[in-house]
Amino acid sequence: MNIVEPRLLKGFRDFAPNEMAKRNHVERILRSVFESYGYGQLETPVLEHADILLGKYGNEGDKLTYRFKDNGDRDVAMRYDQTVPFARFVAQNLGTLVRPFKRYQIGSVFRADKPQKGRYRQFTQCDIDIIGSNSVVTDVEVLSVAVEAFRKLGVKGFQVQFSDRKFLESVLDAAGVTAEDRGGVIVEIDKVEKIGTEKVLAAIADKGVNERGLQVIRKILGCQGSFDEKIGALEEFDVERVKSVWNSLKSLGFEMDIVFNPSLARGLDYYTGIITETVVPDSGIGSVCGGGRYDNLLGTFSKEVLSGIGIAFGLDRIIDVMETQGLFKEVTASAEYLVTVFDQSLMGKSLEIAGKLRESGASVEVYLGNNLKIAKQFKYAERAGINKVVLVGEDEVTKFESEGILVVKDMNSGEQEEEKV
Amino acid sequence: MNIVEPRLLKGFRDFAPNEMAKRNHVERILRSVFESYGYGQLETPVLEHADILLGKYGNEGDKLTYRFKDNGDRDVAMRYDQTVPFARFVAQNLGTLVRPFKRYQIGSVFRADKPQKGRYRQFTQCDIDIIGSNSVVTDVEVLSVAVEAFRKLGVKGFQVQFSDRKFLESVLDAAGVTAEDRGGVIVEIDKVEKIGTEKVLAAIADKGVNERGLQVIRKILGCQGSFDEKIGALEEFDVERVKSVWNSLKSLGFEMDIVFNPSLARGLDYYTGIITETVVPDSGIGSVCGGGRYDNLLGTFSKEVLSGIGIAFGLDRIIDVMETQGLFKEVTASAEYLVTVFDQSLMGKSLEIAGKLRESGASVEVYLGNNLKIAKQFKYAERAGINKVVLVGEDEVTKFESEGILVVKDMNSGEQEEEKV
Repeated sequence: MNIVEPRLLKGFRDFAPNEMAKRNHVERILRSVFESYGYGQLETPVLEHADILLGKYGNEGDKLTYRFKDNGDRDVAMRYDQTVPFARFVAQNLGTLVRPFKRYQIGSVFRADKPQKGRYRQFTQCDIDIIGSNSVVTDVEVLSVAVEAFRKLGVKGFQVQFSDRKFLESVLDAAGVTAEDRGGVIVEIDKVEKIGTEKVLAAIADKGVNERGLQVIRKILGCQGSFDEKIGALEEFDVERVKSVWNSLKSLGFEMDIVFNPSLARGLDYYTGIITETVVPDSGIGSVCGGGRYDNLLGTFSKEVLSGIGIAFGLDRIIDVMETQGLFKEVTASAEYLVTVFDQSLMGKSLEIAGKLRESGASVEVYLGNNLKIAKQFKYAERAGINKVVLVGEDEVTKFESEGILVVKDMNSGEQEEEKV
Repeated sequence: MNIVEPRLLKGFRDFAPNEMAKRNHVERILRSVFESYGYGQLETPVLEHADILLGKYGNEGDKLTYRFKDNGDRDVAMRYDQTVPFARFVAQNLGTLVRPFKRYQIGSVFRADKPQKGRYRQFTQCDIDIIGSNSVVTDVEVLSVAVEAFRKLGVKGFQVQFSDRKFLESVLDAAGVTAEDRGGVIVEIDKVEKIGTEKVLAAIADKGVNERGLQVIRKILGCQGSFDEKIGALEEFDVERVKSVWNSLKSLGFEMDIVFNPSLARGLDYYTGIITETVVPDSGIGSVCGGGRYDNLLGTFSKEVLSGIGIAFGLDRIIDVMETQGLFKEVTASAEYLVTVFDQSLMGKSLEIAGKLRESGASVEVYLGNNLKIAKQFKYAERAGINKVVLVGEDEVTKFESEGILVVKDMNSGEQEEEKV
């Protein structure tokens, strides 16, 4: 027999149970927050007709899309993100969708990217979007969901930063930046956290913005202080939406976790209103959530124009931050109890006791090995990370049946304790 | 602009929020049962090296596997089931896995099959397996998980049927069926529910089994009655394992949902011990869960022989059965409350009230539309399936702030009611 070497494709990962327990923990909390705001889940297929996905992500994106001919010679492609399939779904169901329509999506996406630390060829995206409204309530809601999610996850020191592309436009207008230069200037402004104010201004000067214009842009790059101080310094620009969003969030008690960051730009062309990024300063990890308002979700799928707002949570990065902050200490795939099996004749009792414990909500393994030596069973508990081992010999069965008491060995302390069930 | 027609590939599905709510409901219950028995989740990638997957599913399976060259000219294939990737994972981690090892997997698999009613090119599999032990406890556990899962799902009239391949072998031995004919005879026995005893026996006679042999096989095809009656009629064969599994399940109180079916065969070659199928008689839907014991999980991935037992739940079929039985009446993606927004100045109050309701565990939407006409908002609630609409005009705000009372319109009855928060 030829052995096929068991191995993974580069850039792909297995998630063993303890790793999955963390991912499921985060996913469960995100879901519960989304659902408490009335978002339902949408799921689209992994495979789509290639022409649905291609041409939406630019040349680079098209190159990174997994694309092939299927057995029926159809040109197909694997999900590259969740936004384009969402747009396809909405366009396909325009007649029946109740608007405003909101939904969440949690799923794997695939990119034939060069694998490196933190970048994988299959990874999970978690998105929420609201389409068919540009009411300020939608801005407030999306930012609220971000705050609540990171609070419920227990992430320490996070900041949900936001700004407004319309505000930024008004700054660029005042700075005399021409329509053609706008995209390039926004990309430069985006770098301020990394390279600092002076280098950003030098790069913008290279694009032909004059000294007076640079002074205007400097106002947003160096803007510090409380919200009121920032607004005080920037009142000459279009800060209407920023103020009303802030006031609502403040009255909801979200003030301490929200930061107006006037130099937030988000490079992507398609944002047209509120933009947001959640960061954990000093974590060494980039933004863990980001998004904003866009004008034309449906693009080439329909002539109808539907605008909306959405944010995406980066599951892998959130897990990295939470790992750094020690937030998974209690999260494990290990059962709470191992119920031992002393011998064949007592097996039924072991199963019965396990059932009783499960009824109380505990997760419980019964020892499943062939070899019933008790030392083997303790060893198994230790290696499987199970802390409580229930002894089920004849004396213990008598105790259980007469008094409803279990004899439990705590694997950490080594002590035997009695537990009422 | 050229419009790209928004459409799905044949055999693939979107799941809109109300459909997803049902799938998530079923998945959540399965997960909670699996986890209460100490199963952790394993997740493997959608893409694998083609040589990992090919040659494991027979010629037909190889043909149905989505396979292509990726951008790096690697020969890759999409997950066809979860068992082969599981075997690959185990072989790759033999040194560190604690044995017996058990895990569950829930994920999408892909088959380039001819789409037809109930058969899709992407569908969800839910598997549990225990490897590295052939103790009778593992048989009992896997059957118990099936019973508990269908009980918790609320499925009416389900039967977890089981038998034992060793028992069946002893019958075929007694019937004088040769080793070469065995596979073919098992396939015929498998058809008894569909075509009846006489046709099965005729087909087996065609394979050269003589009259005395047919009389032996007839004993299992026509075997009816209680467990004790069946065993009484079949005592001459190898019923040891069947009896001990049954006795344990009986003492656990699972007797009423478990049926020993002596003619259960399950066509697949690789089963070697207990086999099982869960059916809902008269549902018109085939088996909703099935599996059994196998001898060599690792196959070509390793020289080590690891046996185990596993079952797979068919998510789509379970949903079909539950739909027929009306078990999703309460399952919806709709929020419980819609909080109205009377005007811009009262928006903050609407958001505050929504937050209060969420704190009590409810799912709550705030009206997000641009047009604040109250008739529009009622219309939205109706179409979105939201039953309780919270009125937030000036009088209602006063009531809320002075007495903690909300004014709520019930969309079914049309009545206004007061609710304490």
